[in-house]
Amino acid sequence: MGAPDPNDPGLLTPAETSLLTDQYELAMAASYFGREMNQPAVFELFVRHLPAHRRWLMAAGLGPALALVEQMRFGPAELEYLRSLHFPEPFIEYLADLRVTCDVDAIPEGTVVFEGEPLVRVTGPRIEAQLIETLLLNQINFQTAIATKAARIVLAIGGGVPDPSGGLIDFSPRRDHGADAAMKAARAAAIAGAGGTSNVAAAMRYGLTPVGTMAHSYVMSFEHEEDAFKAFMEDFPQNAVMLVDTYDTLQGVRHAISAARATGVHLRGVRLDSGDLDALSRGARALLDEAGRRDAVIVASGDLEERQIAHLVSAGAPIDLWGVGTDLGTSRDSPAVGGVYKLVADMPVPGHWRSAHKRSPAKATRPGPKQVFRHTRNGRICGDVVGLADESLEGRRLLAPAMRGGERVIRESLADMRERAAAELSALPEGLRAPRDEEIAPYPVTYSERLEELTRRAVAGEDIEVPA
Amino acid sequence: MGAPDPNDPGLLTPAETSLLTDQYELAMAASYFGREMNQPAVFELFVRHLPAHRRWLMAAGLGPALALVEQMRFGPAELEYLRSLHFPEPFIEYLADLRVTCDVDAIPEGTVVFEGEPLVRVTGPRIEAQLIETLLLNQINFQTAIATKAARIVLAIGGGVPDPSGGLIDFSPRRDHGADAAMKAARAAAIAGAGGTSNVAAAMRYGLTPVGTMAHSYVMSFEHEEDAFKAFMEDFPQNAVMLVDTYDTLQGVRHAISAARATGVHLRGVRLDSGDLDALSRGARALLDEAGRRDAVIVASGDLEERQIAHLVSAGAPIDLWGVGTDLGTSRDSPAVGGVYKLVADMPVPGHWRSAHKRSPAKATRPGPKQVFRHTRNGRICGDVVGLADESLEGRRLLAPAMRGGERVIRESLADMRERAAAELSALPEGLRAPRDEEIAPYPVTYSERLEELTRRAVAGEDIEVPA
Repeated sequence: MGAPDPNDPGLLTPAETSLLTDQYELAMAASYFGREMNQPAVFELFVRHLPAHRRWLMAAGLGPALALVEQMRFGPAELEYLRSLHFPEPFIEYLADLRVTCDVDAIPEGTVVFEGEPLVRVTGPRIEAQLIETLLLNQINFQTAIATKAARIVLAIGGGVPDPSGGLIDFSPRRDHGADAAMKAARAAAIAGAGGTSNVAAAMRYGLTPVGTMAHSYVMSFEHEEDAFKAFMEDFPQNAVMLVDTYDTLQGVRHAISAARATGVHLRGVRLDSGDLDALSRGARALLDEAGRRDAVIVASGDLEERQIAHLVSAGAPIDLWGVGTDLGTSRDSPAVGGVYKLVADMPVPGHWRSAHKRSPAKATRPGPKQVFRHTRNGRICGDVVGLADESLEGRRLLAPAMRGGERVIRESLADMRERAAAELSALPEGLRAPRDEEIAPYPVTYSERLEELTRRAVAGEDIEVPA
Repeated sequence: MGAPDPNDPGLLTPAETSLLTDQYELAMAASYFGREMNQPAVFELFVRHLPAHRRWLMAAGLGPALALVEQMRFGPAELEYLRSLHFPEPFIEYLADLRVTCDVDAIPEGTVVFEGEPLVRVTGPRIEAQLIETLLLNQINFQTAIATKAARIVLAIGGGVPDPSGGLIDFSPRRDHGADAAMKAARAAAIAGAGGTSNVAAAMRYGLTPVGTMAHSYVMSFEHEEDAFKAFMEDFPQNAVMLVDTYDTLQGVRHAISAARATGVHLRGVRLDSGDLDALSRGARALLDEAGRRDAVIVASGDLEERQIAHLVSAGAPIDLWGVGTDLGTSRDSPAVGGVYKLVADMPVPGHWRSAHKRSPAKATRPGPKQVFRHTRNGRICGDVVGLADESLEGRRLLAPAMRGGERVIRESLADMRERAAAELSALPEGLRAPRDEEIAPYPVTYSERLEELTRRAVAGEDIEVPA
């Protein structure tokens, strides 16, 4: 093991995420190991309360999270570090050979979910299920936050329906919380319906469309704005979108038009990065149309946020593409999804599942492995029932097998996830579509009779056998 | 190059961050390359406006950012991907051999900074300086956001002065925005004064103190709460901090005391994770004192936030350690620092630096390479002057050499950064210490006469020779 380095780049390989865990996970695991308490257990990942400014969430992050679980290893350096923290040697030897063998059932990415609904259910040896808690939460909480924000922006661009044009472009890498966030923000945005990303690494890894124009510094690197535009058109004749606000925006549009004339290059569009976007987009549109450039698109960027986008769209501003950075990549108005991961059943006696629940007043947990049953009326979702996993209730079952014996059994394509997300947004009730904060009746999530009964008995202190 | 995989773990190696860049950086670089526009240029990273709820920022992220710049490479897979995007072959060949050779001057980590002040100044061949923009912003913006939030919490714990006890513990990995964010949040918190982190990987990489207790699921895995406590005490006699709120908090404290009696283990403390922390910490303290456990500490956790901590501290709640997760790791009330990276000078004629600035009304940039001169009175900072880099003004110069010819020339120890941060927080004026939002006079940041004059002439359209 090398000495710790306070200036280390800090990037982990997939295998090294074995230590991307809260210290207590390892302490508990060591204790369970020493006591031979590695019987099967069931944990569920769910959101107790929706975050501020959110009435629903769009689940995301499952694919990368399960890939990390599959590839997690405790290598020599990690084991040596745990030795230095005085973890017992037999436990360290156990970790050296550890491969996760759990079963995972989960709600697929791109699905709209609500509070109290298990997004992920992990069934497996208690130690393994415990050790992957932090990694699952670290990946799924924030990717769900970003997919949700992206979906809201996609609805704003579409005027309340999911925009089919891919008008949202992820411009967030410079404001995302680090390298992993930048990769996953681009991916989450794509699931929610974004048409492209400025992040080249994410485009390469995840098969997204890389998008970009030029920076102000490029324009400033030439004597005159029009020289810069001509140079860029000559070098990238297929991608001639000109950033027009370095000096004077409408003058910039005129320079873009004249540069296109001079070079004979097809002007794909102009980008507005500052100023009154409503007025400037109309002014730019008029100039472009006047010059016979009706197919040139108008790209807006510059600290755009959801409400402002909704306002510009409803005002009819002629903007075709929306490059959103900070607001998208950090979900600025609601940057955290508070997902938790709780024990809901265990098996102290072989073959007999026992309910588990926490009784502390503010944080009670309903016992037993669960399923979500979703109801739809006239093409709109109208209510969910959370029941026990073995119940046969009406409605679409949201959780599906995702991992069996530690191997992924679903690997969805991006197209599948995008299609699902668009369908989910189309099925949202009217009141949940707009970016507004007024009180409305929450979406109805209720509990099945059997789950209510089980909860009552658990609260009364009974240990109850449950199905799993 | 492998086919893109929508379920890839998405973690990059340090070398692979070459493509963690906005597409336009590569487009501009290709254009500059083709036009032999690779003359020296100067870019500065600064914050135009302080984010919401912030009156100062604590600079962080420089060490990992420069390590990444040093290790950045374009490998065969990355080059193949750029080829597929139709970047010209000579440019791709240039990238294959590229090593960053820039000079970097920067404000060291742990320093308090204000708007308009360059945190990082990059001088080097235009293409290289351009290509590292996104990576620098991706790393420094968010780490500065987290260090700032951590510093505010450290002040809250100390009742307005930096808490010297390391009472803040980073509990954020499950809410951080991915793997990189978790590593850097722990590091940023440590710089600001946190005493430990629950994140084992970050503790290992960065030499931090790993901290942890147990989860509710551990307590629930035993028949009785006291059995769980006894088991944990036997397994971790050196780390006997008991989580007491799974069922009834004060009953839990009694169980912790009786388990310690039964096992003969020294009770290090109890953790309260829910409920009325003021009342419960007093109740727990009384029970512990009554049992002769005066040295047992009380750890609080559970969605703690800055204002609540300040309130509990001023009310005198007997809490010794504060485990903060979401609020710290996402800087929830202000999750983005809007740092930008702007061209301030270039050298179209060899040997002659020329000022560069952007004139668009809302986003004007002051020209020329800059330095920050800080003034102090009676041990408190009282005003900064931003001047040109070659000026000899009064005050402490904040920017110092960080990289020369692409090699890091500072590699500070964590202790150095922590010491600086504590000194900086101690030197904050009274009005900037408390977590309040009322209007107060902003900290005075002014510009030197020479910089004002240069700005006036640049605004008037002159190209001015500047020192660099």
